[in-house]
Amino acid sequence: MPGMLSKILPRDETFFEMFVELAENINAGAKAMVELLENYTNVAVQVEIIKGLEHKGDTITHAVMKKLDQTFVTPFDREDIHEFTSTIDDVLDLTDAAASRLVTYRVDRIRPGVADLAKILEEATARIATAVRVLEKRNHILDHCIEINRLENEGDRVSRALIAQLFEEEKDPVQIIKWKEIIEVLEHAIDKCEDVANVIESVVLKNA
Amino acid sequence: MPGMLSKILPRDETFFEMFVELAENINAGAKAMVELLENYTNVAVQVEIIKGLEHKGDTITHAVMKKLDQTFVTPFDREDIHEFTSTIDDVLDLTDAAASRLVTYRVDRIRPGVADLAKILEEATARIATAVRVLEKRNHILDHCIEINRLENEGDRVSRALIAQLFEEEKDPVQIIKWKEIIEVLEHAIDKCEDVANVIESVVLKNA
Amino acid sequence: MPGMLSKILPRDETFFEMFVELAENINAGAKAMVELLENYTNVAVQVEIIKGLEHKGDTITHAVMKKLDQTFVTPFDREDIHEFTSTIDDVLDLTDAAASRLVTYRVDRIRPGVADLAKILEEATARIATAVRVLEKRNHILDHCIEINRLENEGDRVSRALIAQLFEEEKDPVQIIKWKEIIEVLEHAIDKCEDVANVIESVVLKNA
Repeated sequence: MPGMLSKILPRDETFFEMFVELAENINAGAKAMVELLENYTNVAVQVEIIKGLEHKGDTITHAVMKKLDQTFVTPFDREDIHEFTSTIDDVLDLTDAAASRLVTYRVDRIRPGVADLAKILEEATARIATAVRVLEKRNHILDHCIEINRLENEGDRVSRALIAQLFEEEKDPVQIIKWKEIIEVLEHAIDKCEDVANVIESVVLKNA
Repeated sequence: MPGMLSKILPRDETFFEMFVELAENINAGAKAMVELLENYTNVAVQVEIIKGLEHKGDTITHAVMKKLDQTFVTPFDREDIHEFTSTIDDVLDLTDAAASRLVTYRVDRIRPGVADLAKILEEATARIATAVRVLEKRNHILDHCIEINRLENEGDRVSRALIAQLFEEEKDPVQIIKWKEIIEVLEHAIDKCEDVANVIESVVLKNA
Repeated sequence: MPGMLSKILPRDETFFEMFVELAENINAGAKAMVELLENYTNVAVQVEIIKGLEHKGDTITHAVMKKLDQTFVTPFDREDIHEFTSTIDDVLDLTDAAASRLVTYRVDRIRPGVADLAKILEEATARIATAVRVLEKRNHILDHCIEINRLENEGDRVSRALIAQLFEEEKDPVQIIKWKEIIEVLEHAIDKCEDVANVIESVVLKNA
């Protein structure tokens, strides 16, 4: 695939290549989120990076839709491709939503433990990328889906602990409102990873 | 279709006619919401009007389901018709949810800017009605879907700005809880317009 | 089906038997929730019981998935079976989420009226169990779905009244945040019952 020509000629990517790009892009978004929470400086710039990845995801999604419109034989059902891209898009939308709330709410320091939730999102999206890379050959793909389910349960447990701690320690109701939501949006992004795994599972079962 | 007879005889509406009615009904709901927010008097009466439109939508949906049960050849897949009607139903449910919260929360004046969010909902639902009117002939239908996506992004931007302003200006946490939710429910109604557009897109792609 | 042998030999359950088990399990979860709210003692133990039912549901779901993977002819489309099990799973997830919030938020007494909302959930899940028991023979199944829709509307009405009352009576914003969410999660569980009914409706219409 590399080499001079492929850099010059317009690439005709396959669907699977575009799915991998989408998956790697949500993983890049999750990584940027961990970085932002662990190194909370130049916030506006870091939030813009995540927003940029979200726009990149939209561009790839539109390319998939265009290709779908011009292709007769697709690797799996058109409506499953549609659901896969829109669910994967949700993960990055929610990552971006969590990031942008830090700006909207003028958050000046990150509560301890919140970065751990973003790390679970990073792991879950990495696992999605792995699953999508083997989507064509299907080896061990259901194992990756099971692992994503496990990570979703862990995300649930961690976010509950963070919220319990928030109500325990924080007495200002406005701070409680802000942080409760940031934690929940991150958890929701992890939930969406499970939805992506469900779509993958469903596609694999249908084409078994 | 017009003329004396069609007014007298029981109409046997086609699926497409009923889809247009459903779409125009959610647009009527959004218009009533803008009116309510811009002219905040006789609140209980205006909220009842929106509730009435929601019931009307349920009646049309049941008629679609009944026709589906009695029809052998449908214009597109039965399950897509089902998803289309239930997603479009969600838009009006959420419009109604936003309206009814004004009563539940005993809101006595509307915060500046909130009507702008309802206007985006009005535009998005008008665009859905336009798309549904051309669903049979399919001309330029994907352009309408793209415009609905753009409006969803704008709704997102406006609601984020409203919430930032809310936290900036309002110091009473109870007022923050109430208004944050009203804004979010309106934004959610706009999000659902994007889901409707996705169903339309998916149907068009499947039957390409 | 009963008798000595079926108790000794490993059972090869049919899909329909497993669907009934899943439905009865969410009904058991709802019953345990009513019991918890009406008899608010030994909270940690009662919350664990609901968590246990949620794990049981996961186990049945995995068994369905495994059987799906090993079966050539399925009673209805593979993707519908997948959607049915994942939607029904959501009901118990949300029941468990409501229960666990009582612990997370260190709730020490239950507000009046909240148990009524859980009773609607109990009724809706009982109705799902009834619908699923007749799924194979299909008699009057759509009537059960209509009744679940009615219960969803009632859940909506009751939760709105509870939230209005909460804002009326409770002055502590932190208490408002906690109870508003517990009420909403319960209402969301009831909403999901309507989603289950929609999947059942859709399956019945498709296979009409």
